[in-house]
Amino acid sequence: MTIPVPIPGKRKDKWPVAILGATGAVGQMFVRLLAEHPWFEIAELAASERSAGKKYGEVTRWLEGPTPPPKIQSRRVIACDPGVVSAPIVFSALDAAVAGEVETAFARAGKFVLSNAKNFRMEPDVPLVIPEVNGDHLGLLECQRQRRGWTGAIVTNANCSATVAAVALAPLHQKFGIRQLFLSTMQAVSGAGYPGVPSLDILGNVIPYIVDEEPKLEREMLKLLGRFEDGEVTSAAFKVSAHTNRVAVEHGHTICMTVGFEETPTPEAAIETMRTWEGLPSTTRLPTRPQHPLIVTDAPDRPQPRRDVNAGAGMTVTVGRVRRDAILDLRMVALGHNTIRGAAGGSVLNAELLASNGAFD
Amino acid sequence: MTIPVPIPGKRKDKWPVAILGATGAVGQMFVRLLAEHPWFEIAELAASERSAGKKYGEVTRWLEGPTPPPKIQSRRVIACDPGVVSAPIVFSALDAAVAGEVETAFARAGKFVLSNAKNFRMEPDVPLVIPEVNGDHLGLLECQRQRRGWTGAIVTNANCSATVAAVALAPLHQKFGIRQLFLSTMQAVSGAGYPGVPSLDILGNVIPYIVDEEPKLEREMLKLLGRFEDGEVTSAAFKVSAHTNRVAVEHGHTICMTVGFEETPTPEAAIETMRTWEGLPSTTRLPTRPQHPLIVTDAPDRPQPRRDVNAGAGMTVTVGRVRRDAILDLRMVALGHNTIRGAAGGSVLNAELLASNGAFD
Amino acid sequence: MTIPVPIPGKRKDKWPVAILGATGAVGQMFVRLLAEHPWFEIAELAASERSAGKKYGEVTRWLEGPTPPPKIQSRRVIACDPGVVSAPIVFSALDAAVAGEVETAFARAGKFVLSNAKNFRMEPDVPLVIPEVNGDHLGLLECQRQRRGWTGAIVTNANCSATVAAVALAPLHQKFGIRQLFLSTMQAVSGAGYPGVPSLDILGNVIPYIVDEEPKLEREMLKLLGRFEDGEVTSAAFKVSAHTNRVAVEHGHTICMTVGFEETPTPEAAIETMRTWEGLPSTTRLPTRPQHPLIVTDAPDRPQPRRDVNAGAGMTVTVGRVRRDAILDLRMVALGHNTIRGAAGGSVLNAELLASNGAFD
Amino acid sequence: MTIPVPIPGKRKDKWPVAILGATGAVGQMFVRLLAEHPWFEIAELAASERSAGKKYGEVTRWLEGPTPPPKIQSRRVIACDPGVVSAPIVFSALDAAVAGEVETAFARAGKFVLSNAKNFRMEPDVPLVIPEVNGDHLGLLECQRQRRGWTGAIVTNANCSATVAAVALAPLHQKFGIRQLFLSTMQAVSGAGYPGVPSLDILGNVIPYIVDEEPKLEREMLKLLGRFEDGEVTSAAFKVSAHTNRVAVEHGHTICMTVGFEETPTPEAAIETMRTWEGLPSTTRLPTRPQHPLIVTDAPDRPQPRRDVNAGAGMTVTVGRVRRDAILDLRMVALGHNTIRGAAGGSVLNAELLASNGAFD
Repeated sequence: MTIPVPIPGKRKDKWPVAILGATGAVGQMFVRLLAEHPWFEIAELAASERSAGKKYGEVTRWLEGPTPPPKIQSRRVIACDPGVVSAPIVFSALDAAVAGEVETAFARAGKFVLSNAKNFRMEPDVPLVIPEVNGDHLGLLECQRQRRGWTGAIVTNANCSATVAAVALAPLHQKFGIRQLFLSTMQAVSGAGYPGVPSLDILGNVIPYIVDEEPKLEREMLKLLGRFEDGEVTSAAFKVSAHTNRVAVEHGHTICMTVGFEETPTPEAAIETMRTWEGLPSTTRLPTRPQHPLIVTDAPDRPQPRRDVNAGAGMTVTVGRVRRDAILDLRMVALGHNTIRGAAGGSVLNAELLASNGAFD
Repeated sequence: MTIPVPIPGKRKDKWPVAILGATGAVGQMFVRLLAEHPWFEIAELAASERSAGKKYGEVTRWLEGPTPPPKIQSRRVIACDPGVVSAPIVFSALDAAVAGEVETAFARAGKFVLSNAKNFRMEPDVPLVIPEVNGDHLGLLECQRQRRGWTGAIVTNANCSATVAAVALAPLHQKFGIRQLFLSTMQAVSGAGYPGVPSLDILGNVIPYIVDEEPKLEREMLKLLGRFEDGEVTSAAFKVSAHTNRVAVEHGHTICMTVGFEETPTPEAAIETMRTWEGLPSTTRLPTRPQHPLIVTDAPDRPQPRRDVNAGAGMTVTVGRVRRDAILDLRMVALGHNTIRGAAGGSVLNAELLASNGAFD
Repeated sequence: MTIPVPIPGKRKDKWPVAILGATGAVGQMFVRLLAEHPWFEIAELAASERSAGKKYGEVTRWLEGPTPPPKIQSRRVIACDPGVVSAPIVFSALDAAVAGEVETAFARAGKFVLSNAKNFRMEPDVPLVIPEVNGDHLGLLECQRQRRGWTGAIVTNANCSATVAAVALAPLHQKFGIRQLFLSTMQAVSGAGYPGVPSLDILGNVIPYIVDEEPKLEREMLKLLGRFEDGEVTSAAFKVSAHTNRVAVEHGHTICMTVGFEETPTPEAAIETMRTWEGLPSTTRLPTRPQHPLIVTDAPDRPQPRRDVNAGAGMTVTVGRVRRDAILDLRMVALGHNTIRGAAGGSVLNAELLASNGAFD
Repeated sequence: MTIPVPIPGKRKDKWPVAILGATGAVGQMFVRLLAEHPWFEIAELAASERSAGKKYGEVTRWLEGPTPPPKIQSRRVIACDPGVVSAPIVFSALDAAVAGEVETAFARAGKFVLSNAKNFRMEPDVPLVIPEVNGDHLGLLECQRQRRGWTGAIVTNANCSATVAAVALAPLHQKFGIRQLFLSTMQAVSGAGYPGVPSLDILGNVIPYIVDEEPKLEREMLKLLGRFEDGEVTSAAFKVSAHTNRVAVEHGHTICMTVGFEETPTPEAAIETMRTWEGLPSTTRLPTRPQHPLIVTDAPDRPQPRRDVNAGAGMTVTVGRVRRDAILDLRMVALGHNTIRGAAGGSVLNAELLASNGAFD
């Protein structure tokens, strides 16, 4: 694996990238994260037919933070069509309803697709990647190209809750071997996109159900914490049981976790393991990687979404309340930013890892 | 056990009752529930020294619903002193910090104390009662009086989350025997009283910690589902593990539960068991008892606090999402009103059960 | 005007009514208010083509309170077509986009249409009615039928904010004559229907804009407080200036009002005038009319939506903070339930007034 | 007035400053804003007797953002006593209940006190300052020292709502002369400090009352927009009428304003005037001054607190919806950060203006 070097030393120019589904909530987050990116430059903004041909600023109801710079606001939106998009790298914020077909077309046309959609995540030849945790799963791309005959590729990032839980548990699984995992999430409304959750459903309320979320969370966790060997990924073998809930929070999924291990750690040992974990070494110099992918707080009542969600510019997962469990081994609470670490930021970091590996050269 | 008969047939007058801590959040709920009660009449409102001597309406910041009738608003608050309170039955909404001493004084002075405080709940000779679930635990009173030499008595109701979970699980435990129980709660702010949770802590946020709540929930569950035999209560023997969280909800604790049983029921059998459960027969004619202490919803995304909390006038627990679990046997979600079923309403129902048993005659 | 007598003494049966747009937020509120109505019986539930033919319970995402009784849940939804609807009285919760055409068709076909839509409100021959305030405006119906040749009729109720403000100000305008009126509203999300306001827009936020709301509020206020003479309504002549805002409240529009009068009342005189106001005498025995259409609170920090919105079963407007103004004469705050008094409840009350006038005989 | 030059060119060291009331909500904001300040260095943290002697990190429940650096966390809190505090410049976040006495003691002892408390704001010889708006009011200090015989001084910043409104209206008042002003605010909970507003009071609610806020807002507006001439400040002479409301927003006061002018501007002229306004030239190089103290948005539904509150790092006021009024001349909505521009940030900017004027040399 190539040691990542600052791209300016390697190439004169940034890589041009396109964003598919650029007008939606996750698409907007891509725009925010890529507007000043040191390696990538937003070359194209693609969206549905309805928006194509119009200026980005006119068709986008900007949801958060300062509006994008004028050069982006005034750019014409183009169609999500590989015949129209020229950038070699595309970030996909497409809905699952269309992602399957569109992303396939782009990969077939030679593009690198960094996808947030669920469609390909569980395909055996498609990497489901959190760079610090399982960046080596990118090795699947060889098999993907052979099997599918694509000149491009699809790399996916996981469901937002699965991502937060996997970052929190990766070091513990590596060292102590998870045997059983009970999860109960409290997920932010931004996870449902825009317009997403109606305010009449969530003000002063909890919705103890998110369509299709529990199976996704359960199976993606296992692939994320699986092993890449002999050209394939073997999912982790422990059992996962999840409750998923929607709460009146803007950003940040909070996850109560109860864990049984092959080898029981003390809470102190678990905390030490998480605190000293640095993630895959090949990721440490990637621009979007936070200094600490995982931090453990000592405060008795943290992590809290509104107060901790922006740790590490939204890329750090915060764990707290690590304590002994009455039935299994440990209980703890994890929190991460669902639209940064759990969506757009995750895709950008995946692209950076590909870049540092020479995939785009 | 005496069959409860309508009190008007039994006595001419209602029983006079006092409320200790009448100005606080739970105290106000007692006022609401007792203002028009068919068996009890609010005779005295007691509170701290600061309020004593003043009119109830002047010292009470009324939190919810229409203000009490003028005859209550204009009543003078008295001290929480058994020498001053003349009613034979007292409902205590006192803080744990003072409840121990004050409730003891009232019981010693011959009063029946219906307590919401945690102080006596786990005492072996003090009943911790949800009438439909374990009304027979009132049998402990005989032992209590003997042991303590009190002419009065203390009967407690449980922590609000423990109450909701116990109502939901009682029929399943009776039939299938709980072996392991994982809980994760999302609790309303009213559970913390008034002023309680600062808005800066909870707006758009989740607090994954409630002081001392998890141990209370774990141990009280077991006593509630325990057996009364030979003059003592033997707590249930299964293991409980809880996460407790505060969310931005006004009323209603939502509890995600994952349960392992001695004998595995199908989800259908569990639902049938809960739906046909009627609670202790001796409770069915008590005025505050809802027709159905427990209902099971088929809606995929219920129960929800804002939409289901008032079922059965706040006395019914609603269960939903009963489904198979990947690790243990069943997962489900329960919801109940924390300040009605889980606090003041529970105490009133306890008093009604005592009344129907002839305890006050 | 006929003195309204209890209908059971007048007729054996209730009047059959239909609800147009029965599956939406306001439609559901009609179902709630009419399910047990003493004079009306829900005979038909009509909605869009998409729902027609299906059971009401299957196509309706019930938003609030206990679900409707089985006989309503299992009723087949029919089309919003006067050829299909047989009931002579129809409550319309239709969107403005279709209400114009559909309501016209029903009126032409001989139906009494009680409309919540804005389309006809400002037509000179269409009554815009709050019974207690301007029930005599129903006199316009004669002119409406003559002019339009309809055998049926359309009666409208006003924009929700205009309704709340008009109930609060009617007695003051009648006695002291409003000269200038500045309003600033804080409106609940239910005013936007369902799905309505996305939670990402309103959690922890204020939106200082509601499409087309300010002009509606300004002009409808004046018609509501206008005079019916010689067969026509002359709008009130004072000036209105409004700011309208959306806030994170479920139900209840709060309106800050600053008022200048022809004849300056003291705050005490204004309060006395509002407290003694009883509304049009012909309305006092209508079943949906609250005992007090308008109450004035002395609490320094009321009215508050969550605490006061259900006064009079949602039909009472609460006014508070009546005080002298530094520029004009008085400042005060009004609050009312936007989907009951300001929408479905208002229509039902209009129908009751028509019934008591003999319009349906 | 000295032209402000970068202090590093002027002095080797930063000025040592103390924060009074450092553990509360505004005190914490001072710590955030001063932790990396280019001109000032936090030398001392002072608070109540209860906290004195303990480490700052131990006695402070940190409310927002990343916790302060270790060197601040581990600093011992000292008493709010000029005999103990050695820094010549003190930022006061004290409650009004104690601010009067304590701030006097510091000023008498030769300290420059930058105060957030209301106690001295309306004193004729105490400057009430927003640097861009009325920085010249600092000229009052000469009179203050003469009259009071202090070697130190007190400079105040205004009520948070008054500050936001004054920044928005200053350029319009300067050019067109305000004649009448109606305000209706929707204020964030952080304006009440911590613990401040109980969540049971504000979740899903509006409180149309804030103790003593309306008179403060009305009178401070006029002093802020007054003129400093001949050694004294003459308040502006127009009339102000305010409604103040608390809403479920974390940070950001939104203010609906209806304005009558001596000379009527068109909305376009008003917008142009606000957009080209740059504030007092002597402030443009102060480190905490935003590039634009005032921006005007064209979006029809902005400003919104959650989306616009952080403009200019919380120091920029955003105005929107500038439109013609039906009674007076213009309506518009203003928004600003209540604890940054409206509190701690305002004080820091005041100190910077003093520094650039040579007051601390």
